[in-house]
Amino acid sequence: MNTPTPAVTDQYDTTDATVAALQRTLDGRWHALRDEVRGRDDVAQLHVDPATDVESYRAAVWQMLARLAAEGHAVHGFPTAVGGRGDIGGSVVSFEMLAYADLSLQVKSGVQWGLFGGAIQALGNAEQHARYLPGVMDLTLPGCFAMTETGHGSDVQSVHTTATYDAETGEFVVDTPTESAKKDYIGNAARDGRMAAVFVQLYSLGERHGVHAVLVPLRGDDGAVLPGVEIVDDGHKEGLNGVDNGRLAFHGVRVPRENLLDRYGTVAPDGTYSSSIESENRRFFTMLGALVRGRVSVSGSAVGAASLAQTIAVRYGEARRQFAAPGGDEEITVLDYLAHQRKLLPGLARTYALRFAQNELVEMLHDIQTTREAGGDVDEKRQRELESRAAGTKALTTWHATATIQACREACGGQGYLSENRLGQLRADTDVFTTFEGDNTVLLQLVAKGLISGYADDFGHLDTLGTVRFVADQVLDTVAERTSLRQLAERLRAVAPGRDSDDVRDRSWQVKLLDDREEHTLDGLVRRLRPARENGISPERQFAIFNGAQDHLLRAARAHLDGLVLDAFVRGIDACADPSARALLGTVCDLYALSLIEEDKGWFLEHGRISATRSKAVTAEVNRLCGELRPHARALVDAFGIPEAWIGAPIATGAEQRRQDEARAHAASVA
Amino acid sequence: MNTPTPAVTDQYDTTDATVAALQRTLDGRWHALRDEVRGRDDVAQLHVDPATDVESYRAAVWQMLARLAAEGHAVHGFPTAVGGRGDIGGSVVSFEMLAYADLSLQVKSGVQWGLFGGAIQALGNAEQHARYLPGVMDLTLPGCFAMTETGHGSDVQSVHTTATYDAETGEFVVDTPTESAKKDYIGNAARDGRMAAVFVQLYSLGERHGVHAVLVPLRGDDGAVLPGVEIVDDGHKEGLNGVDNGRLAFHGVRVPRENLLDRYGTVAPDGTYSSSIESENRRFFTMLGALVRGRVSVSGSAVGAASLAQTIAVRYGEARRQFAAPGGDEEITVLDYLAHQRKLLPGLARTYALRFAQNELVEMLHDIQTTREAGGDVDEKRQRELESRAAGTKALTTWHATATIQACREACGGQGYLSENRLGQLRADTDVFTTFEGDNTVLLQLVAKGLISGYADDFGHLDTLGTVRFVADQVLDTVAERTSLRQLAERLRAVAPGRDSDDVRDRSWQVKLLDDREEHTLDGLVRRLRPARENGISPERQFAIFNGAQDHLLRAARAHLDGLVLDAFVRGIDACADPSARALLGTVCDLYALSLIEEDKGWFLEHGRISATRSKAVTAEVNRLCGELRPHARALVDAFGIPEAWIGAPIATGAEQRRQDEARAHAASVA
Repeated sequence: MNTPTPAVTDQYDTTDATVAALQRTLDGRWHALRDEVRGRDDVAQLHVDPATDVESYRAAVWQMLARLAAEGHAVHGFPTAVGGRGDIGGSVVSFEMLAYADLSLQVKSGVQWGLFGGAIQALGNAEQHARYLPGVMDLTLPGCFAMTETGHGSDVQSVHTTATYDAETGEFVVDTPTESAKKDYIGNAARDGRMAAVFVQLYSLGERHGVHAVLVPLRGDDGAVLPGVEIVDDGHKEGLNGVDNGRLAFHGVRVPRENLLDRYGTVAPDGTYSSSIESENRRFFTMLGALVRGRVSVSGSAVGAASLAQTIAVRYGEARRQFAAPGGDEEITVLDYLAHQRKLLPGLARTYALRFAQNELVEMLHDIQTTREAGGDVDEKRQRELESRAAGTKALTTWHATATIQACREACGGQGYLSENRLGQLRADTDVFTTFEGDNTVLLQLVAKGLISGYADDFGHLDTLGTVRFVADQVLDTVAERTSLRQLAERLRAVAPGRDSDDVRDRSWQVKLLDDREEHTLDGLVRRLRPARENGISPERQFAIFNGAQDHLLRAARAHLDGLVLDAFVRGIDACADPSARALLGTVCDLYALSLIEEDKGWFLEHGRISATRSKAVTAEVNRLCGELRPHARALVDAFGIPEAWIGAPIATGAEQRRQDEARAHAASVA
Repeated sequence: MNTPTPAVTDQYDTTDATVAALQRTLDGRWHALRDEVRGRDDVAQLHVDPATDVESYRAAVWQMLARLAAEGHAVHGFPTAVGGRGDIGGSVVSFEMLAYADLSLQVKSGVQWGLFGGAIQALGNAEQHARYLPGVMDLTLPGCFAMTETGHGSDVQSVHTTATYDAETGEFVVDTPTESAKKDYIGNAARDGRMAAVFVQLYSLGERHGVHAVLVPLRGDDGAVLPGVEIVDDGHKEGLNGVDNGRLAFHGVRVPRENLLDRYGTVAPDGTYSSSIESENRRFFTMLGALVRGRVSVSGSAVGAASLAQTIAVRYGEARRQFAAPGGDEEITVLDYLAHQRKLLPGLARTYALRFAQNELVEMLHDIQTTREAGGDVDEKRQRELESRAAGTKALTTWHATATIQACREACGGQGYLSENRLGQLRADTDVFTTFEGDNTVLLQLVAKGLISGYADDFGHLDTLGTVRFVADQVLDTVAERTSLRQLAERLRAVAPGRDSDDVRDRSWQVKLLDDREEHTLDGLVRRLRPARENGISPERQFAIFNGAQDHLLRAARAHLDGLVLDAFVRGIDACADPSARALLGTVCDLYALSLIEEDKGWFLEHGRISATRSKAVTAEVNRLCGELRPHARALVDAFGIPEAWIGAPIATGAEQRRQDEARAHAASVA
């Protein structure tokens, strides 16, 4: 299939109106809020010079956070009853937009309003809302979300910090029994936090009731650390150095009974424990589920960071020239090289795909949580689906951000290494996204588990053991909750039955291929795990079966998620009315789908899903699509709608172009 | 092929003696020098706290560099005539060992002794050696290697800085005509450099003679910047902030005629230019070839950085536990999970493979340059082979470092993000390795070009145009200079003819497969490029043909390099006499070869080189090998021989183990 690449002929009519239509499509339901934030010129000032030392950086971020608070930036997601706007989706979107300013500022705001405030909102009662949330919003009560411990990051159900109820005084006594039980990497802890939502094993009347959150004051009004509280600075980090992460330990710290965030479990003055959810396991996962917004927000931030990096790299790739062209002295624009297009354009197509998936995730979060806050009923199955999508989308978007920012850095060479051009800091700041708010590998296992169980009622412990036990308890023959790819493929075939079935750009073929992979991977997984539910099987053998299939499990999760993303992309195109933007989106979607298929062509060939000829045709088409989209690369990044002043990087805002123009003028003058 | 993973049975007798034998094998020819450096406890102090601000970091690195100079660290590679040791390989190895201390220090030493000193050594005459090299070695003459310009990084033959000979005064006048002609990212420029080897277009008597290097003083004895010299600080970077990179411009700066480094081209007092190499192109590439040591050194540094990251991640993976095991409360060591093994062990096997390839590269460099320095004759073909190997190995090792340090960071979760555990800084410091000393993508094109041309005599301009023209000039039907994989496969088959041909661990099968891929990819490439040499073809069409095959070209280079690396691995095993170490190395080599095949299984299936059944067997075997090597992971990283005090990262040196021990003791006491 050594088809020579045809000369690029530009078949799209990309005008400013096209870019505007693309942007409107990418912006999604909260487009007006996005425009509102874009109108704020001062966001560009919310960026700290990365050469700043840690203490000054933290101080600068604190100042900016206070400014955001004063301007009411925090109100979006909080209940109207306490002065918020009650716009949960809006809170995620406005958070995401801060990714373009400074990621330390963004994460710090996420700690304060999303995690600390979010924990009080989701796990606290109305009285606690009224008492604490105004201070959370206006920053008079800076706080921490103290869940992770040094020894327990992924398995947070096993945290070792304890809160023991003392009925005589009506207080909880909070304790850190060991070094590994210290709360670790806690944002706002090292410098600013006055209070923490601390996740503890709750004890009362000699009994353990599982994980709950208790509000524990950390510092007094004068900023001094309170007695019994121990705070160690986590120090310098790879990135996010404007966030003051620290390690917290508690030694017999007493807090009133009223400090328990008790929506899902409460302790009466006499020490009697009660909860609306009987199973401890179920209660824990219900609480975690209520906190899902953090994961959705990180995912949005990853998409934002990827968009910014690609905006910088594509602009530079359009200005930068290297090596003279044949038959002349004019040097070639680097984005005209296929190798450069390959570095950047499939990644750009994936950012588009993930943007649509992220938009759907935010809508789902918003609709579910808004319904629940209004006292409405939410189908548990739908809540599980939200959690699964949040976990899986976050894994995809954050790994994508890491990979694509890296590719952008390399595509910008030495310029990409200078801090002024932002790529290095974007990479370093976002690096932790793949392992915080849930380690991506663990999150994919959660997704796979949901697929096998068909979101069944009795969802188990999120760990390897739990998965095995759970699998052993279920009827594994029926696998439910597949994506809607099959219906989509049928619909597409019905709409355009005449398309040449040899055409790798036939969307229904692409969709069918991903659907087949999802089905086959899942079926195979179920077969591999089935022996684990045989009677009398030893725990060691159970673990060996599960562990031996772990790569298969991760693959099944990815296959499912790829389907969800393609599905979202197709819906996104359907929602776009502008014909020129639609055409371009369709081509971007082709590049996304075909580069996905190319990446995993080993699997498709291995399983007889494509022929060798077709596999080679996919590669040829990816190359061709790179050439076809190359003239529109700038329009595609412009449609992210990042205001000029926010981009910051000199190489992306004219410096390279000016240098090239000057060099060519000079060459002409001496010639 | 859903073979259940068998319980791991440990089939190797790994003792301290095994580790010592492994280490001796990995250390290679310069093992004694490595041990000498290992004996220096103070290297551990040569590490700067990454929280240090840029100016203090630079000052600290300068102090450490002075200390190294005072201790004679610089002497290895310089000629004995000026007080050096004349040990070129030793200079690369001792440079590499500094990767374990601080990468800024390492790169700074590389700038001073490798690049600046190396340019004088390689391009200067005996008088210049005597005059400058002692000061280079003892650091009384800190200098810069000023080749790259803002506008020309990859295409350094097109630099725009000029040096024009003025016969009246016997001086060169050095000028920077445009913004993009500024020398950029130049180490030692912003703070410490007193002189620079500046690469210029040389003009004399109105004629241009191509690129040459001229020594230009930058600062006076008082450190003040000299008249006509302009220095701008490149500022904060993603990493390597202990190196003072800067931008240099020259405005009519006059230097004596004697400052031209004139081994390959000289200007007589009257302005007459003469050179032993007539072709300007050939002269340029001969000069570049003489500077190949820089590329070899960066490659060694990347292997060192990868080894350190893996030492940290494997140690943590052996201490860290998460999620309780079935049937008990004991948590599982994370390295026992297949997903964790998959994250770390194939990468570890690749570091082994690249270590052997790097050792061979250093030996080749040493033998060639030592012969030449002694006045001996070096076959030009062998010199070309060295340049090609240096380019290709550097691309593989630096991309590997980027990927594997990233995987190690993720495998260490939040701990991996803390600067005290070094992974973040290792990533940031080494990130630029993929684009400096030659952009990796450009380097692979150089490798591919060498393959097509068969290292023919008339090597052309290293650029896309050059490649096309060159290709057009050559007889493309014969492709020479393949790796020796075919002979290796035959030899292996002759040695062990009885092996089951179904066994994916049959080395001769693995070798044959890689050999086939190399041959087929190269043949296909030649076929695709052939139309470019048709008579009367337009330059645009030539470019289109070349550009359309660029991904194929890169693939051909990689296929060739993978073969070289496997070849080197097999030779490395052959050189190991200890039976236990040999057995382990053989298994590591299997994991390397099979994970390589797995990674590219799409190609092997597409081209009918493996069946679907065999492809699945490869994946199953990679999983099995991970389990088989898991008990020896610690021994494998110990064999890198990084002294305990140099590792630094608390998570790798007992902190996690102590925490786990305490937590388990506490759990036992409350139970």
